[in-house]
Formats: sequence, C-alpha cells, structure tokens
Amino acid sequence: MSLIVQKFGGSSVKDAERLKNVADIITKTYAAGNQVVVVVSAQGDTTDDFIEKAREVNLKPSRREMDVLLSAGEQISMALLAMTIESLGYPVVSLTGWQAGIQTSSHYSAAKIHRINTERLSMELDKKNIVIVAGFQGINKYDDITTLGRGGSDTTAVALAAALHADLCQIYTDVNGVYTTDPRICKGAKKLDDISYDEMLELASLGANVLHNRSVELAKKYNIKLEVLSSLTREPGTMVKEVEKVEKLLVRGVTKDNDVARISIVDIPDEPGNAFRIFATLAQHEINIDMILQSIGRDGKKDISFTVATAHMEEAVEALKTCPGIVAENISTRDDVSKVSIVGAGMVSHAGVASTMFEALYNSGINIHMICTSEIKVSVLIDRDKANLAVSAIHDQFRLEG
Amino acid sequence: MSLIVQKFGGSSVKDAERLKNVADIITKTYAAGNQVVVVVSAQGDTTDDFIEKAREVNLKPSRREMDVLLSAGEQISMALLAMTIESLGYPVVSLTGWQAGIQTSSHYSAAKIHRINTERLSMELDKKNIVIVAGFQGINKYDDITTLGRGGSDTTAVALAAALHADLCQIYTDVNGVYTTDPRICKGAKKLDDISYDEMLELASLGANVLHNRSVELAKKYNIKLEVLSSLTREPGTMVKEVEKVEKLLVRGVTKDNDVARISIVDIPDEPGNAFRIFATLAQHEINIDMILQSIGRDGKKDISFTVATAHMEEAVEALKTCPGIVAENISTRDDVSKVSIVGAGMVSHAGVASTMFEALYNSGINIHMICTSEIKVSVLIDRDKANLAVSAIHDQFRLEG
Repeated sequence: MSLIVQKFGGSSVKDAERLKNVADIITKTYAAGNQVVVVVSAQGDTTDDFIEKAREVNLKPSRREMDVLLSAGEQISMALLAMTIESLGYPVVSLTGWQAGIQTSSHYSAAKIHRINTERLSMELDKKNIVIVAGFQGINKYDDITTLGRGGSDTTAVALAAALHADLCQIYTDVNGVYTTDPRICKGAKKLDDISYDEMLELASLGANVLHNRSVELAKKYNIKLEVLSSLTREPGTMVKEVEKVEKLLVRGVTKDNDVARISIVDIPDEPGNAFRIFATLAQHEINIDMILQSIGRDGKKDISFTVATAHMEEAVEALKTCPGIVAENISTRDDVSKVSIVGAGMVSHAGVASTMFEALYNSGINIHMICTSEIKVSVLIDRDKANLAVSAIHDQFRLEG
Repeated sequence: MSLIVQKFGGSSVKDAERLKNVADIITKTYAAGNQVVVVVSAQGDTTDDFIEKAREVNLKPSRREMDVLLSAGEQISMALLAMTIESLGYPVVSLTGWQAGIQTSSHYSAAKIHRINTERLSMELDKKNIVIVAGFQGINKYDDITTLGRGGSDTTAVALAAALHADLCQIYTDVNGVYTTDPRICKGAKKLDDISYDEMLELASLGANVLHNRSVELAKKYNIKLEVLSSLTREPGTMVKEVEKVEKLLVRGVTKDNDVARISIVDIPDEPGNAFRIFATLAQHEINIDMILQSIGRDGKKDISFTVATAHMEEAVEALKTCPGIVAENISTRDDVSKVSIVGAGMVSHAGVASTMFEALYNSGINIHMICTSEIKVSVLIDRDKANLAVSAIHDQFRLEG
C-alpha cells in the first residue's frame, strides 16, 4: 500500500464531466489499494470571476479580504469533487486549508506554508477515507485565511506529500508531461520520461508552465518523487526526481519566456558602487531581476542591462529615477523581446553546447541581445517575433525530436 | 454608544449596486457612533446555483459536503461586502462561521447553534472594526462546517445579538416591516409599528415570510429587541419586542399559507390507540403535523384529518400505509387548499373574534374545511382559489386597513 498525493488543476475540474473524469482517476487509484490525498484548485474561471466581482466594488481591496474571497473557490470545487466521488460509492471527505492543518505565514495573498498539522489528515486516512484538500490556501497565526499566491496548489500538494511522507506526488495538468520544448511551437517536441529537480527548476523558471518553481524546490528539499501527467490521456507522464547518473542527452529541453522586458542604463560613470545602488534600489521595491549584463567600461562610461518581468518594467524605471546620478535619459527599455533557453544537467562539463545553440540562431539569422549562462542552462534574449523560429531551430540543431 | 447587529439577506447583497447600498447603511450606523456587527447571506441566486452544480454530479450528496459547498456562498458575499466597506474608508473585517466562534450541533444542513465563543468578535470590536459575519453557518465539535438550515442567517443574527448583549438586532429584508396582511393581496394592508414576540411567532409560522420562527423564538428567549425593515426605503420598520400592555387592536394580522396539504384517514375503527399509532408513525418519518381534526365516532368508525407541508404529502401517505389496519382505501388527500389565519395577542380574552372571521368567510361564500385555534390565533383551511378573497374579506371585516 502506497500513499499517493494527486493534484488536479482548475481545468481538470472545470465542469461536471471533468469532475467525473477526475473522480474516476482517484477512485481507481484508491481501489488499487492506495491511500489517496487529493489537492484541488478552483474550477476553471472561478478565480477570474471573483476578481471581477471584487473590482466592481473596490479597485484596491485588501489582500486579507481578497484571500477570504478567493479561498471560497477551492472550497466549492473540493465539495463538488467529494460529492462526485460519493456518487461512485467511495468513502470521501473534503477539508479546507485550515481543516487540513495547513499553517502559513501571515503574508496575505503570498503566504508561505510554515507547517502542516497532520492530525486530522491522518485520522481521515485511518478511517479509509479518500481525502480532498483545498489547494492554494491555509490559515495564519491569527486564524485568518491566507492564499499561497501563484502556483499555490502545486505547493500545497508537495507540502502535503512531504508532511505525510507520501510515496508519490502526481501533478495532473492538461499536458502529458514535460517536453523537450513546447509542442505547439515545435512538432518534433518529445516527452521526457524523467528529469532531475534542478533541470525541472530551470525549465519551470524559464516559462515551461507545467510546474511552479516553489513546488519543485520543495520537492527537491524533501526528496518527493513528482510525476507530471495528463488527467485526460491517462498515459504515464514525466517523473521529476533525483537523477543519479549523468544522462547521455546533454540538452533536455528548449524553452521560451515572453514575460520579459529589458532595461538598459547607458552612459553612467564607470566607477564602483553604481551596480550596487541600482540593484539595491530595485530590491527595495521587491522587483526580481533575471539576466544581467554589464558592458566593459570605455571613456569612463559603462552600460548596465538587465531583464525583469514585463509587469514590473514601469515600476522599475520609476524606481531607477530615484537613484543618484541616473536620469530619464540614461534609461532605455524594450518589451518586445523573449528569452530562449536550453537546459540540461550534463551541460556544464561538455564544451560546445553553447556554441551549437548560437550556431542554430546564426543559421536562422537571429540576432542575440543578451546571453546568460548557469551550470545547467544557457539563455539568450532575442526579438520576440523570432522566438518560435529560434526554439525550433535550436531543437532541430540538438536533434531532440522524438 | 450602542452595539447593533444588522442582518442583510441575499437580495440585499445580490450585486455591486446593492452591496454599495448596504455598505452605506452600515457605515452610517457606524459613523453615528455605534459598534456594528453585520450578518450576511449568500448573494441572490448563489445557493440555487450551488445546488444545481451539486445535482450535476450527485443526485443525493451527503449533507456534510453540501454544507461545505453552501457555506462558500456566505464567504463570497461577506468578503465582497467587506471590500465595499473598505472602499468607503472604514475599518472592517469579515469572519466565517468558525472564525466568529459559532459552535453548532453536529446535524449537517440543520445544525443548531450551541454556543458562540465571542473572543474573536470582541477583539475585532475593540479594534473599532465593523465586523461582517457569514450567516447560516458554524462548525461542529469535529471542526466540520455546518449550516443552520432554513432561516439560518436570521438565527445567526439573533444569536450574535444575544451573545454580544447587543442593544438592537435589525433584520433588513425587501419589505418595509410586518404588515396586517400581505400588501400584494390586500391594498388596505397596514404596517405595524410594533408587535410582540408571540404574535410574530404565529405570523411567521403561518407563512408571513418576513422572519423565520427560530430567530423569533431565540429573540424572545433572550429578550432581544428585533427590528424588521427594508434596506431600500430606509424607513423605520416594525419593532418585535415584549409588548407590555394588551393592545387595543385585538387582531394584528391576517395571513395565508399555500404550503399545506390535507390528509384524511376515513372509516377507521373508533378505538383507543389509533391516533397514537398514526402520529407516532409520522413522527418516525420526521413529518411535522399542523392542524389536526378528529371526527366524533359513529357506527364504531371515525375519521382523522390533518395537514402537512405539501412536500411531505406523498411521504406521509406511504408512511401511513405501514400502519396496522390502514390501507390505501382509507386515505384521501387534497393539496389544493390554503390555510388562512388571524393572529392577535388579545384574542383569547375577547369573545366574538372567531365568529367575526367566520362571518366574513360566509359573506364571501367560502366553505371552511377545518378550523384550528390557539391562544392567539384562529386558522381555517379553505379552497386555495378562494384564499386571497378570504384574506381581503377578513382584513376588511376587522377594519385593519391603515
């Protein structure tokens, strides 16, 4: 007997038909002799509907009340899923975040899970119940409802798997697993049977919207075996786990991220402390920086370029204007760019990986604006209208097709 | 400074416009120097929508999961109302049933409030917050969500008023107060400025859908001053309280109830124990009986007639067939009847009240099927198609018009 945590996203439970499909997956897992804990997101467009309703009465509602509102979404879907399972004749109970003992930080709308009191969960599992838990939510020390922010339901699933020492955590999505690149962009995209935590982390942060980074980090920390698979096709997905031997395939995937904007600060004095002041200012505004490029100083001047999420571009520019010595004329921005990356654990020890990527781009006539490398990835910033072409060209160059 | 509990029903908060109207009432009460606790129902059709969603996956869902689902409705409306109040610049916090310390019996979908732990509520009032509480819901000793069943939000409001020793409990509805009869039936209907708990109890149980009986009983028990008023007109409503002197006006109101069906058991042996067996059987099936009429025995046979809610008629008939000595031929039913009643605290001590009512019916050519009287009311069962005529005739006969 294994303990399996299964997480289903909003599209997997969006209506009665999908709920029945999901209930079938869950009860088959249970009937095979497993203990099953299910984490469920709000149905389909519920969250967007709630946000719209809130806007009608308050353009800037408090995060506390927003969390109260949004958390009702999972409460609705968990009850409906439990009822669907009841109709199949299986024992089931649904639990909200607070009922499931999910204790979080006080930070409304972006709370972190501090600990999970598993008393109630264990009691329900001992009673042979299938346990449905509301994803994305918990309570803080004031007994107030919190939500975990983006990717929260994945995080709930992995945290529960860790707390309950689950044998497997399955993340059901609308794709079959993790691919070498986006199948919608490149027909030759191939599904990976397994991938390491670190590779998955790079892929997730690079815009492969399959698993949220927080959940992968947590899975790595507690060594939780993750499986990414489809609730529709029911085929084996991709296992995310500690991969022991270096794989033969150096490059595991090619990804594209459009949520990126470049900010350049040009012609500033080439003297110590400038970079520190710039990035300290941005940190104060809680703006995350991704790629950073600093030109070599010349004529006593230098340039610093970096990328941020597109939503933060305007705020970053305003913040930079408060830095001593930087005026509007020093700042230029571009938001018509994309980041294209290759990821693979074996990459660092093999020469020629980066140059193969650049060759593919050169052959397609694509200009590179910025380059950024890490142990297991190489990223380039290019014009957005060339991004899909770049992904296909790189995928072909590395012969990743299935 | 007074502590005022205000309850708003589903139609009062059904959309952004109504939420703003309600927020205006609440903040004006607060700005006048009062402490304000607000009880809110689910928006408009939310509950019906949830029930429909549940039906799509399970025709007979468990009451536990149904309560989880339905209680999300008040959570949504309380958050939206809190946001609306925030937008007006007032301090506010919303609390679910469990956060507000509302502890109930374990009986899902028909729970009773056992006690209210006012710690959190008092803390929020001390912080000068307007406190919004989800109506209709609580938690039981298993930390499971329960709902209070019909009229639950009124009950929540009165129970909170009792626990917090509130000075006044205002129940906002879509009518201006309690009338001598239904203004849609009888143009001469007059709004009452005040009414006693007992009179309100009879009116409520007789189909004047203004206040649910449970809330009036609770208000009487704890001597809570209730006011029934409209959230739209903002005029003074009807005060429900202990009325000390016997009012001059003997008859306070005329009501009609269409949710009534008559069951007759005819030609059964006139011997002891028959009535006991019949009503014990119905009690086992949790079917409430209203009017009861037993004929005088003749030729060793007698008839017993009684009324039940229309929804229970079929079930009652099936249950009766299991009684020894009763077969299908003994049972006749009618569901095209209505109960029309007059209510007034001074009635019992004044002769001629019942006969004045019967005179009105006679003058209108309306036949009476059953008669039932109590200390403060007289009810008759008549053909449903004559019910509105009966209400107007009685109202005129007693000169209740404003």
